[in-house]
Amino acid sequence: GLLAAPAFAGDTADELEDRFGGLDYEPVMDVPDRDVRTRVNKFRVETEDGRHRFGIRGRLMTDFAYVDDNYKTTDDERADRGDLAKYGTIIRRARLGALGIMYDNWEWQLEVDFRDDEIRFANAYMAYLFDSGRLAVGHFKEPFSLESSTSSRRISFIERAAPVDAYRPSRQIGIMYETLVPNWYGAFGVFGGDGVARDRDVTEGFSVAARASFAPFMDQQNRVWSHLGASANYRANAYEYERSRGRDREYESVRMRTRLGTRAVDGRLIGENDMENVEDYTTFALEAAAGFGPFSLQGEYIRQRLSRDEDSRDFVDPDTTTMTHDGYYVQASYFLTGESRNYRAFSGDFGATRILRPVSEGGRGGWELLARYATADSYEHHEPDDRQSIDHYTLGLNWYPEQDIVLKFNAMYVNAERGEDQINGDSKKWDSWVYAMRFQFEF
Amino acid sequence: GLLAAPAFAGDTADELEDRFGGLDYEPVMDVPDRDVRTRVNKFRVETEDGRHRFGIRGRLMTDFAYVDDNYKTTDDERADRGDLAKYGTIIRRARLGALGIMYDNWEWQLEVDFRDDEIRFANAYMAYLFDSGRLAVGHFKEPFSLESSTSSRRISFIERAAPVDAYRPSRQIGIMYETLVPNWYGAFGVFGGDGVARDRDVTEGFSVAARASFAPFMDQQNRVWSHLGASANYRANAYEYERSRGRDREYESVRMRTRLGTRAVDGRLIGENDMENVEDYTTFALEAAAGFGPFSLQGEYIRQRLSRDEDSRDFVDPDTTTMTHDGYYVQASYFLTGESRNYRAFSGDFGATRILRPVSEGGRGGWELLARYATADSYEHHEPDDRQSIDHYTLGLNWYPEQDIVLKFNAMYVNAERGEDQINGDSKKWDSWVYAMRFQFEF
Amino acid sequence: GLLAAPAFAGDTADELEDRFGGLDYEPVMDVPDRDVRTRVNKFRVETEDGRHRFGIRGRLMTDFAYVDDNYKTTDDERADRGDLAKYGTIIRRARLGALGIMYDNWEWQLEVDFRDDEIRFANAYMAYLFDSGRLAVGHFKEPFSLESSTSSRRISFIERAAPVDAYRPSRQIGIMYETLVPNWYGAFGVFGGDGVARDRDVTEGFSVAARASFAPFMDQQNRVWSHLGASANYRANAYEYERSRGRDREYESVRMRTRLGTRAVDGRLIGENDMENVEDYTTFALEAAAGFGPFSLQGEYIRQRLSRDEDSRDFVDPDTTTMTHDGYYVQASYFLTGESRNYRAFSGDFGATRILRPVSEGGRGGWELLARYATADSYEHHEPDDRQSIDHYTLGLNWYPEQDIVLKFNAMYVNAERGEDQINGDSKKWDSWVYAMRFQFEF
Repeated sequence: GLLAAPAFAGDTADELEDRFGGLDYEPVMDVPDRDVRTRVNKFRVETEDGRHRFGIRGRLMTDFAYVDDNYKTTDDERADRGDLAKYGTIIRRARLGALGIMYDNWEWQLEVDFRDDEIRFANAYMAYLFDSGRLAVGHFKEPFSLESSTSSRRISFIERAAPVDAYRPSRQIGIMYETLVPNWYGAFGVFGGDGVARDRDVTEGFSVAARASFAPFMDQQNRVWSHLGASANYRANAYEYERSRGRDREYESVRMRTRLGTRAVDGRLIGENDMENVEDYTTFALEAAAGFGPFSLQGEYIRQRLSRDEDSRDFVDPDTTTMTHDGYYVQASYFLTGESRNYRAFSGDFGATRILRPVSEGGRGGWELLARYATADSYEHHEPDDRQSIDHYTLGLNWYPEQDIVLKFNAMYVNAERGEDQINGDSKKWDSWVYAMRFQFEF
Repeated sequence: GLLAAPAFAGDTADELEDRFGGLDYEPVMDVPDRDVRTRVNKFRVETEDGRHRFGIRGRLMTDFAYVDDNYKTTDDERADRGDLAKYGTIIRRARLGALGIMYDNWEWQLEVDFRDDEIRFANAYMAYLFDSGRLAVGHFKEPFSLESSTSSRRISFIERAAPVDAYRPSRQIGIMYETLVPNWYGAFGVFGGDGVARDRDVTEGFSVAARASFAPFMDQQNRVWSHLGASANYRANAYEYERSRGRDREYESVRMRTRLGTRAVDGRLIGENDMENVEDYTTFALEAAAGFGPFSLQGEYIRQRLSRDEDSRDFVDPDTTTMTHDGYYVQASYFLTGESRNYRAFSGDFGATRILRPVSEGGRGGWELLARYATADSYEHHEPDDRQSIDHYTLGLNWYPEQDIVLKFNAMYVNAERGEDQINGDSKKWDSWVYAMRFQFEF
Repeated sequence: GLLAAPAFAGDTADELEDRFGGLDYEPVMDVPDRDVRTRVNKFRVETEDGRHRFGIRGRLMTDFAYVDDNYKTTDDERADRGDLAKYGTIIRRARLGALGIMYDNWEWQLEVDFRDDEIRFANAYMAYLFDSGRLAVGHFKEPFSLESSTSSRRISFIERAAPVDAYRPSRQIGIMYETLVPNWYGAFGVFGGDGVARDRDVTEGFSVAARASFAPFMDQQNRVWSHLGASANYRANAYEYERSRGRDREYESVRMRTRLGTRAVDGRLIGENDMENVEDYTTFALEAAAGFGPFSLQGEYIRQRLSRDEDSRDFVDPDTTTMTHDGYYVQASYFLTGESRNYRAFSGDFGATRILRPVSEGGRGGWELLARYATADSYEHHEPDDRQSIDHYTLGLNWYPEQDIVLKFNAMYVNAERGEDQINGDSKKWDSWVYAMRFQFEF
């Protein structure tokens, strides 16, 4: 019955319980009088002894974009196709969840993303905290790349750089150990695949993922920091296997996609088509970043190699048994109002920038100028000779009126190309300007 | 990694942080000892200085309906079709969300509706509070009509009156300014369209929306109030545009639908079919209401004019380039137990009625008697000569055992008509009784 | 407008309200200074007078399974079909919700399950608390069976026993009264069907459900307890009824399905196909259980009889107007670390076992050894002569490191059969081992 609610045997009885003769079902159980501390903004409660904590968290990102391309997009390989929307609005992320610590060492999160018709889990895990590390089980990001590891609330531009966006792994169900030490970071995990929405005939594949980084020099007094890191990710692709159709495996499609630098207009400049017959693939990232007061630089190189299985069902093209993708980006940030990016050597990523003079304290908030060049190249994407490449230039301006609120403007010049023959001019090209805005807050 | 959690630089270190050498990642961060006030029912916490607030909110509406029509519904134009369910149950709204104020002036909500397989956002925005107004960005109602602006928790009947239900705009992503002054209300906004679930080839259209209202006379001492208001909404329809299929626009379908006065049985008396080739449309509302102690009256007239684009793809009928819909309703409410409706001149809508003698204080709760007549007429709905009209009579009885709990009963007589020729008798008619109940609470 | 937020007339004004001239819209309303008690782990707040309570709750269950069957599954009746995934991961349940009591006697919950693409409500109801019972309206479990009534957080194995899993009713929208007395339990309810995701032409059917149980002997001092119970459930099936296609009813498909004892790999050993033309069906359960300190036994017998309507549309087989399913299970539990199962006579189910020496207090947590035999038999399942049966043996080991955290291991031997002729050997058989793990926590 409805009474099938959690008993919590440690609590003493109260009047309602007394009324029902000590029936210990949750809705009528009392709240014992303990010392509890409460924070309002980013709501948290914790016991005085620090053994238990609970909080609610969320974020909302609302985007607008306008594409100035005179209807000449090229994300469809057919000559006369591919018209995109001219402008668009989107709720890019709308997350709501809970998090906490129980019994000193058990840390957890359960956060859901409602951004569109589909439900997506964000973090949904429990981790045991050791003295210098943590072991997590559940649904979370595979450890990979500086930009991918950094929270979407902390990235500088509206979207992550094109090669990271295209080739980085998703969140998956898995188990991972990561370090909790001051000056360097290491993580190792094993992950399943597509555990949330599944086809029951499909063996889902798995990945083995590792990332390590450290800070070659670091001077917190002078706000000088640096970062070097490397990541590697091997994934065995999911497959189906039906005796009735022969002994060969039929692999799931693999998608490596990036868009315009905004999702408010959905142009798929790389990865409009999925890749077939992929047996497994390995992705590497090399990471570097450095900061000097209000100025910082960040860059990564990403390389991916996919192997196709010649024995898989419907495999047609013996010439293309491996495919290679790569790309890199470099970006610069300068805080006009004197803030510094909050590099965290212990997790190899960026935390929230501390805004020095927020509007609510009579200041002008934080202002950040940004520039980025990103390029991604799929030498052969989903079929032989279908190369897809993109050069993506961005100028950005961020305004942080308060600690937890950001307004972002990105002006982007996008130069993309795809087609069978790069030399004879049979490829399709698109160069155009894209303007995007984001209004973001977290709680 | 999982450490990519929000840093909150203002907090001091605690034992867990100390344990990890001051690593400032959220789950291990402490809750500082500040003065916080807490409310349990409609859970809220706020700092003593009032700068920050946080709360959780939600509502649940469970409906049941029975249709006494001997299987003679007419929401399908084919002569022998259109049988509806005889009875049904439905979770009409199930919302859960968070809301708050941060840094004095930044107010926000993030609320999700789980009522069926689809996820829908309710309010999901942030607004800056000025001294006499607020500027909001995000997903919320376009300002339109007294009944549409009133929360679903505050409307008198189970569903809004037929013409409001049929012709009012949806919630959309947009930007809006509205006044915060005592005796009148004005709002102006610009909105995108269908930003949550989208087709990437579709340019989503936009709307410009305005509403104004004031209280011609008002005597709070004697519980006398009045309301006059007007709304206007222009919407440019979404379209697709593919070079390969010619230069003409292909417009998205437009839906203007109302049902039986309940959703527990889904009869689509107006708007079973969508309208095609609509370029844009304008909708107006005239609003009036008045209250004298426990008695109140409310009525609105709504008119909508749609323009079809003769140059759009698949446009076939040159005779029907414009279509007109209109309708009105009048409704009366009388509180047998002496309460008054809570008219709010500052927002041009209704707040929660204060229940005088709730059951938990030994009373009988609040009892409200209701009557409504509503009519809606689509002179030509989705194709030439397809007129659709409805006369909808409702008797209602509401019981509010407590402030936040309502039980509603509606007995409805529905007289609907649709068909090519109203004169020669080729139209289909349906007259029938519908009985509906709702159990509703909010938290 | 956005101001259509809940007024809460009882509160006094604060500075923000003052700023806006006493405008009583929610986001700017203050939190009065009342005495409130707060619990952090399983977050709750309540007023000192106990009239109001509020809490947030949730659970996360992450599963992994491996099937050792050499590709010989048999959940498809075609000879060469039915290959399942070899292994899989899944978020089995991810629930987040709120619960509370308002005005002393009104208890409510609103909890949503995000486990996959679909949204499912868990409990979503309000109940009025009488002195020795409660009347609930909303969405909750139909009262049926000891194992079905026990929360998924409290069951011993990863999944409920096969016959319970196959034949138990779902959560539905309904109204139910259940007792709140110390030593026995009774519940009676009426429920609709499929009120959340519906076809508007379908009259949804209804059920009448009852359950009763008591404790023949009970000695809490010596941790000895016993349980006897019985449940009955009659359901009239949903149907469609279109004049244009004749006067006969077309019934909705009925699904009675069980899987491998895990959902991480989805093998449908009973109920791969749905049943057609079912007019109504009745399901019975007989329940028994007993505990002696750390040792306990539990078993149930379930029988279901379905009647097919010979007059329904597309009814083809006059020989099979009734179908019978039945099954039973017995299971034993032994706590190596001395705990006892928390039997609750007042609700006829199991609450949380109190862990004696959790890891956080220097102990080894709770360790529980389990064994279960379950069998289910559909003598004729979805068509004449298609018998489906399963024998399901499970060995289990549970580790509870803390009160609210469980790690489960199940090793299962599954022996399933289906086919037209059991004697001549035309049936398909499958016997195989399945290994499954779960990591579960609640908050």
